[in-house]
Amino acid sequence: MAVNLPAPQAADLHPVAGLRIGVAEAGIRKANRKDLTVVLIDEGASVAGVFTQNRFCAAPVQVCREHLHSGAIRAMVINTGNANAGTGEDGLIRTRTSCIALARLLEIAPEQVLPFSTGVIMEPLPVERIQAGLPAALADAKESNWLRAAEGIMTTDTVAKAFSKQIDIDGARVTITGISKGAGMIRPNMATMLGYLATDARVDQQLMQQLALELAEGSFNRVTVDGDTSTNDSFVVIATNKAAHAPITSLASAAGQALRAAMLDVARRLAQAIVRDGEGATKFITVRVEGGRDGDECRKVAYAIAHSPLVKTAFFASDPNLGRILAAVGYAGIADLDQTGIDLHLDDVHVAVKGGRNPAYREEDGQRVMKQSEITVRVGLGRGNASDTVWTCDFSHDYVSINADYRS
Amino acid sequence: MAVNLPAPQAADLHPVAGLRIGVAEAGIRKANRKDLTVVLIDEGASVAGVFTQNRFCAAPVQVCREHLHSGAIRAMVINTGNANAGTGEDGLIRTRTSCIALARLLEIAPEQVLPFSTGVIMEPLPVERIQAGLPAALADAKESNWLRAAEGIMTTDTVAKAFSKQIDIDGARVTITGISKGAGMIRPNMATMLGYLATDARVDQQLMQQLALELAEGSFNRVTVDGDTSTNDSFVVIATNKAAHAPITSLASAAGQALRAAMLDVARRLAQAIVRDGEGATKFITVRVEGGRDGDECRKVAYAIAHSPLVKTAFFASDPNLGRILAAVGYAGIADLDQTGIDLHLDDVHVAVKGGRNPAYREEDGQRVMKQSEITVRVGLGRGNASDTVWTCDFSHDYVSINADYRS
Repeated sequence: MAVNLPAPQAADLHPVAGLRIGVAEAGIRKANRKDLTVVLIDEGASVAGVFTQNRFCAAPVQVCREHLHSGAIRAMVINTGNANAGTGEDGLIRTRTSCIALARLLEIAPEQVLPFSTGVIMEPLPVERIQAGLPAALADAKESNWLRAAEGIMTTDTVAKAFSKQIDIDGARVTITGISKGAGMIRPNMATMLGYLATDARVDQQLMQQLALELAEGSFNRVTVDGDTSTNDSFVVIATNKAAHAPITSLASAAGQALRAAMLDVARRLAQAIVRDGEGATKFITVRVEGGRDGDECRKVAYAIAHSPLVKTAFFASDPNLGRILAAVGYAGIADLDQTGIDLHLDDVHVAVKGGRNPAYREEDGQRVMKQSEITVRVGLGRGNASDTVWTCDFSHDYVSINADYRS
Repeated sequence: MAVNLPAPQAADLHPVAGLRIGVAEAGIRKANRKDLTVVLIDEGASVAGVFTQNRFCAAPVQVCREHLHSGAIRAMVINTGNANAGTGEDGLIRTRTSCIALARLLEIAPEQVLPFSTGVIMEPLPVERIQAGLPAALADAKESNWLRAAEGIMTTDTVAKAFSKQIDIDGARVTITGISKGAGMIRPNMATMLGYLATDARVDQQLMQQLALELAEGSFNRVTVDGDTSTNDSFVVIATNKAAHAPITSLASAAGQALRAAMLDVARRLAQAIVRDGEGATKFITVRVEGGRDGDECRKVAYAIAHSPLVKTAFFASDPNLGRILAAVGYAGIADLDQTGIDLHLDDVHVAVKGGRNPAYREEDGQRVMKQSEITVRVGLGRGNASDTVWTCDFSHDYVSINADYRS
């Protein structure tokens, strides 16, 4: 069902030195399901994270923020089946309990563990099942387990999401491997449901937060499925500092730029994979808005288009009902927008010019593009030089089915 | 399919003295369909209107704004099948041509005609069919044609929308009758797709704009189906000044307040009827947000809930997946919202308290309410005394079908 998103192959996912992963079936919500993942990080790694801006953020998000402040992260514990959000004080206690349990087994401090939960909101986390499942997860831990981890964090995802690449920095081979999950409640605001990106590159801890922010901005913060910002969005970046190059102390250096570009490439694929696997998605749509006064207004317009149920159902139907796109441009919130400056392209087809239908536009050309599985909508605002891009998917019968049936 | 919305009966719709309506089949998009409506207003009426805030507003909206400034309105011409939006300069010419055609037949000035179009966006208005259909519409004109008018302005509506009531002002009988249309692209921002409210009450022209604004704020500006603000939203209020009471010169007077309250009642029914007939709707949902610092933040939260595809599909499924509501509260945009102050009720069922699940909440109680066709969601923000209410509907398979098939 996912749009042009083949399942990852274990052989394509390079291990990251200094990081081991174990997965277990803990029966958190359903039996016989990989639902518990632990990530073990060697001493000396640099770690940073960005998290949901949802004010109703989940208990594990609150605890992650605390623990990232307090010290050297050595492990992560991730469960599916339960989001531990909307659970109040009791939810915080349960999250801390899971950190303590893993810390004891690893002989580290509880503050060195980052917890993550994803699944149904407002139900108590069965922390005793996590505790019971941890030994099996630890016994499974190895460097080559990235594919199992990608599978272990899936919920309504239909395809596991994992990408990997290698580059050379100062003649040293550097690996970047990441995984993500998410298909619904996707309009990340700082990060996505869950995304993890690891490298063995040597990166100063003090650069990590900035790096994580920049990567999130260029990837997870530019995708949307349904406009619903999750309570559990978390994106963590880990540099194990095992590679042979000299430490990167500035993102502006040649090595810093090379690493950031390669990491952004992987982060963007992970983010786009979430859209490709968006609930019920049949099409992958790139919305590019150009000619704005600043990036912010371009992004507003791009999201108005990407969130419009009318636009999304027209894409599902392959119907070039393109007036719906213009309507969304009009209500995006630019108070002084002049409609006579608006241009609209669908891939190479010039649909609207100066706010009206392009006289040369033929419906069959629009139809041809609409039938594709990958479509670029390009809007010109005609009022400046800024631009921005957002990725989204269409809105189908299956979206309704999936979300009407989830939980039952 | 509409939720608890019986079809109006002609006998329940009181004629408004000084106002005649005629309907014709002009073949604007499809044959054998009532698609052209004219409203003829006696000299001496007070008229005002509020229109979409969509910057991509349609040609007729632009012309209505001009004509309302320039003088005494005597007629309206309304077509379905084509919105004349996204049509540039050519669209303005076609709209003006239709005003000129009707003005000639009535021997009035073109500026005394208000034009309205609704239907597909970005296709040229077949103005020659409107011209050809006008004589039949005029021949049909009579005071008792309100039901025909309500039917004549329908597009994807499944039920005509018309309400009427009578009150006494200073011992004189006063009539208020209105019609509306709309089922999709509904998140009015000033007014709905099309709404018309007429009274024979005597109201000073200088009060009319304020009256129209207040009525829109309390009715059409509080409903949403899919969050898509239309390019053609128009709401017109007409007082024919034929009733026997003394003229109303202040909305704060007893007569002014009585009239406003009665008109708001009709306007609200018209607005709610649009939600009840929302595309694919199976449930009518009232979202009330209390305990906010100001009305604005309450409205933001109410709309975040009312627009969330996840919340709307949960209502469709009668699934008390109420964490989705809390998540929407969290991303509504209140930067300093404290989740531990949040309360949630579903009708009389107390679901969440202090941001967590109410210990006394039982899933079967939530389930019972979710199965109803009318549901009130009540959110307490716990930070002030302001409140606001928004009306919406659920999100079903039929919404996707209707919008994937519209045009074909």
